[in-house]
Amino acid sequence: MNPGIDDLPVRDELRGKSPYGAPQLDVPVRLNTNENPYPLPEPLVERITERVREAARDLNRYPDRDAVELRTALAAYLTRTGGHRVGVENVWAANGSNEVIQQLLQAFGGPGRTAIGFEPSYSMHALIARGTGTGWISGPRGEDFTIDLPAAEKAIAEHRPDVVFVTTPNNPTGNAVPAETVIALYDAAQAAKPSMVVVDEAYIEFSHGASLLPLLEGRPHLVVSRTMSKAFGAAGLRLGYLAAHPAVVDAVQLVRLPYHLSAITQVTALAALEHTDTLLKYVEQLKGERDRLVTELRAMGYEVTESDANFVQFGRFADSHAAWRRILDRGVLVRDNGVPGRLRVSAGTPAENDAFLDAVRDLKNEQEQSG
Amino acid sequence: MNPGIDDLPVRDELRGKSPYGAPQLDVPVRLNTNENPYPLPEPLVERITERVREAARDLNRYPDRDAVELRTALAAYLTRTGGHRVGVENVWAANGSNEVIQQLLQAFGGPGRTAIGFEPSYSMHALIARGTGTGWISGPRGEDFTIDLPAAEKAIAEHRPDVVFVTTPNNPTGNAVPAETVIALYDAAQAAKPSMVVVDEAYIEFSHGASLLPLLEGRPHLVVSRTMSKAFGAAGLRLGYLAAHPAVVDAVQLVRLPYHLSAITQVTALAALEHTDTLLKYVEQLKGERDRLVTELRAMGYEVTESDANFVQFGRFADSHAAWRRILDRGVLVRDNGVPGRLRVSAGTPAENDAFLDAVRDLKNEQEQSG
Repeated sequence: MNPGIDDLPVRDELRGKSPYGAPQLDVPVRLNTNENPYPLPEPLVERITERVREAARDLNRYPDRDAVELRTALAAYLTRTGGHRVGVENVWAANGSNEVIQQLLQAFGGPGRTAIGFEPSYSMHALIARGTGTGWISGPRGEDFTIDLPAAEKAIAEHRPDVVFVTTPNNPTGNAVPAETVIALYDAAQAAKPSMVVVDEAYIEFSHGASLLPLLEGRPHLVVSRTMSKAFGAAGLRLGYLAAHPAVVDAVQLVRLPYHLSAITQVTALAALEHTDTLLKYVEQLKGERDRLVTELRAMGYEVTESDANFVQFGRFADSHAAWRRILDRGVLVRDNGVPGRLRVSAGTPAENDAFLDAVRDLKNEQEQSG
Repeated sequence: MNPGIDDLPVRDELRGKSPYGAPQLDVPVRLNTNENPYPLPEPLVERITERVREAARDLNRYPDRDAVELRTALAAYLTRTGGHRVGVENVWAANGSNEVIQQLLQAFGGPGRTAIGFEPSYSMHALIARGTGTGWISGPRGEDFTIDLPAAEKAIAEHRPDVVFVTTPNNPTGNAVPAETVIALYDAAQAAKPSMVVVDEAYIEFSHGASLLPLLEGRPHLVVSRTMSKAFGAAGLRLGYLAAHPAVVDAVQLVRLPYHLSAITQVTALAALEHTDTLLKYVEQLKGERDRLVTELRAMGYEVTESDANFVQFGRFADSHAAWRRILDRGVLVRDNGVPGRLRVSAGTPAENDAFLDAVRDLKNEQEQSG
């Protein structure tokens, strides 16, 4: 007997599905997963090494289950950069913002409950909903990829979801959601249920505008989620976190796996936080490169969505998958997120972005010649 | 407004609950969480440091989503020590065996499905079932804490669970489950449903007997879960893994969070696996100390459950919580797992075990004087 998945007693909704994840291809220029192109600076690598050496000597013991030192440092970072005072009691951390979202859905979603997101948006919200037994509602987005507020309010009133996701800057489209829109969605969600509103700020450090952290004031059902994968250049670390009312932090502790965050992860994140200023300088460089991508793509005649993130959505293509393939043939891996006629490119180093721009310039010329 | 958890829209089954976890108290002798008392040897600490330095230089990139190098090394370890050939395609790894179990329940349990364990056993099985919306069935165990096979088979036939947990050596009681019992439970589970059978071998390296890995042959619904927390002295690392038919590995990949395992975790685990032989020598020392604890506790007149683990269950106490407190007053932290009349002590260093034995000798003398 040599069974496949479908011969096992897996849940029905998993049958025929494929694992999530962008293709990991070995090409010269990888601009497909919104990674930060800058390796950590060598002094930070040394600091990580020092702190890991120290932690490894105590590795036979379980880690601090509540990650108090790390949460304190994250709170200080948010307070300093987010325009809102946040304490350790407001912060929770986990293995990537995916695990943060999973814990939120385990506590506030789950079987018999629903969550809504305004799509296209970060596709893991829907997948984690499925993984936690939470019903998923695909909410609307306008033609220009902004949230159409009346339509969104109507969807919330109609479906009365338990959890509302708002991704800002939105992935994969790149545009930010104004504070007034989030306030209106929060109010609509409270009137309908009340439900939890999760503002996913994974890319907020790259935004032209400010974090929505100040909205936490007086809104106990609001959660802001963050990650160190992008601005801190630490996708390999898997460190996500949230800021919210302390009662939310208490609630996720009821569903978190005990000792979920390794001692090594905790000290590595702490080391990175010590180097915040240096890492935020890389963010400034990337914002400049992101703006250059927008300008140059538009100059070539591409249609480009406003971007407050470290990536840019561009099009239109009659066949976006074919365009993706043609760009890949030129050694540049971008992302086809399934948004019709659009592709997404992460802001890389200046040289990587040049390679990308050359590739799409060629593509444009080809299309014009054949068109 | 200053809400508590119950003012939030948390799931009903979480209301009034407390987070799982043993009290983390700062006392001289901590023998409460079955940690390995031996710090990692200094050459291993240096090797971890080296590998982390290298990985940190690439930390801006996402980790290998499929952890192929690590799973290959884990497969080699299992093949060498488990009496059964295991390949990379049979192995999956996650952040602690808790996450392995969570992924298994997401794939094979979940809403509308049930899991059974034979209690008292590892209490996280029931808690992770709750966290994944899986119904929990508390199966029976005999007076002597062995699995009463006819009663267990009857429970399986009656409840037709989707997942059957068998912990061997069992936690917190310490005794191992014979292979014939697991085979009979597997057959009963297949006849009833068919369901998945998860053999939790977190403590197997400390057993007098062999791993049940060879039972995987011809049993595609069997899963063996493992951890590096105990035998590898790496509780702080959070590295759990499983061995099973490749289709099971495919199935958990449908529910795993993408990039769940950090690059730092992967290389730290790889470094530890390079030092397997040294670490297994510590295991041998701990087995000797575990046997000494059994012998000396019995000599004092305590009732001791057979132990194949790195801990020992002993009693009986009229009031086990009071006894726990008296031992703590003497600077030794053991665990009250809620098994009536019993406490659990982890095997520590010889000096730690002496301190524990002195404390329980005092307790015995006191009880005899007052009794």
